[in-house]
Amino acid sequence: MVHFREELDELQRRLLEMAGLVESAIHQSIVALVHRDEQAAKDVLWKEAQINQKDLEIDEFATRLLALYQPMARDMRFLTAVIKMNGDLERMGDLAVNITERALSLMQEPAVKPLIDIPRMAGLAEIMVRNCLDALVKRDEPLARSVLVSDDEVDELRDAVYKELVTFMQEQSTTIPRAIDLMFIAHNLERIADHATNIAEDVLFLMKGIDVRHHAEQRQQT
Amino acid sequence: MVHFREELDELQRRLLEMAGLVESAIHQSIVALVHRDEQAAKDVLWKEAQINQKDLEIDEFATRLLALYQPMARDMRFLTAVIKMNGDLERMGDLAVNITERALSLMQEPAVKPLIDIPRMAGLAEIMVRNCLDALVKRDEPLARSVLVSDDEVDELRDAVYKELVTFMQEQSTTIPRAIDLMFIAHNLERIADHATNIAEDVLFLMKGIDVRHHAEQRQQT
Repeated sequence: MVHFREELDELQRRLLEMAGLVESAIHQSIVALVHRDEQAAKDVLWKEAQINQKDLEIDEFATRLLALYQPMARDMRFLTAVIKMNGDLERMGDLAVNITERALSLMQEPAVKPLIDIPRMAGLAEIMVRNCLDALVKRDEPLARSVLVSDDEVDELRDAVYKELVTFMQEQSTTIPRAIDLMFIAHNLERIADHATNIAEDVLFLMKGIDVRHHAEQRQQT
Repeated sequence: MVHFREELDELQRRLLEMAGLVESAIHQSIVALVHRDEQAAKDVLWKEAQINQKDLEIDEFATRLLALYQPMARDMRFLTAVIKMNGDLERMGDLAVNITERALSLMQEPAVKPLIDIPRMAGLAEIMVRNCLDALVKRDEPLARSVLVSDDEVDELRDAVYKELVTFMQEQSTTIPRAIDLMFIAHNLERIADHATNIAEDVLFLMKGIDVRHHAEQRQQT
């Protein structure tokens, strides 16, 4: 069983590596947007290819461990949770690409407005990705819960972004296509935050058997 | 092992039941939108609560079977695939609720335009949900592949919807908030179709070991 423990550690290590790539892809997608940086955009596409590769590898690895070691309840739960977290991370990579595609299109056009809340949303989303994985590694319940709180902040910022953009669109109809791009970028960031929240919920479930999915438990906001 | 086979059948039966609820939730969300039908909207919310319940049950059931029977490679793959498909279906339920929330808000306002392409997208999405699950039950490869083709059609309709709505927004700025709602409804339908595509890809993988995720294989369009 020593070997099995080492394999589980290796699996967790790969999941962290994947999360590192995802965090960086999110960051670079917003660099591409804010600084109109084509190189950063290419970097996201390159990272996403690696993320997809890792997605397949981690799935394969976790399924192999399930088959090979026929683990008991606790480790079984960890392995099925890894398969789900892996899916969430992979999807975040896709969302970073969506942001990048909109950023590339916006680079060709004059700016609608200086971007403040969108980079703030992205900063929060990156921290959420880091924290939900840190919470997994350290089995840190307050850290996992902090991710749920950040998710509410991201939602508030998203609402503010939408409201402001609607005003721009109504005042100057030429901004409409660009404002829609920004709106979808904010939507993608919100979705990234949702996936980080899914992971944090899985971590809480793993640690305490607390099922916070589907609001089965009332969220404690601080 | 007879008992295990029966359990697998039961698991598949529950997944189909969940898919039936999802299909119906999608349908009712568009009824709510097109016919301004509050009762249909309530029906979606009610169905989503049942979908969430089934999501937890199916996850629990599949994990228990993994732990209890320690199945061999093929059944192991089926069980991990069910866990993923279950996640996709659950997410579709959320997306149907998103559509419904926008429909409820649009009910308070005059119509922007007669809706044609959005109901068409929804019709396709419903068929995709049915077909990807039918493909699983019947181990029907062409049917699974047909879902991938429908996904491309949904994407094309989504592009047409966006284009038309931008024109409306530019011509009459008072329509902007409502047009944005419709845009996000089209986006939600496109996402539902993506999740059905994920399931179809999992079915293909289960049947033939063909990995069509991440475009590992070139899609055959007919």
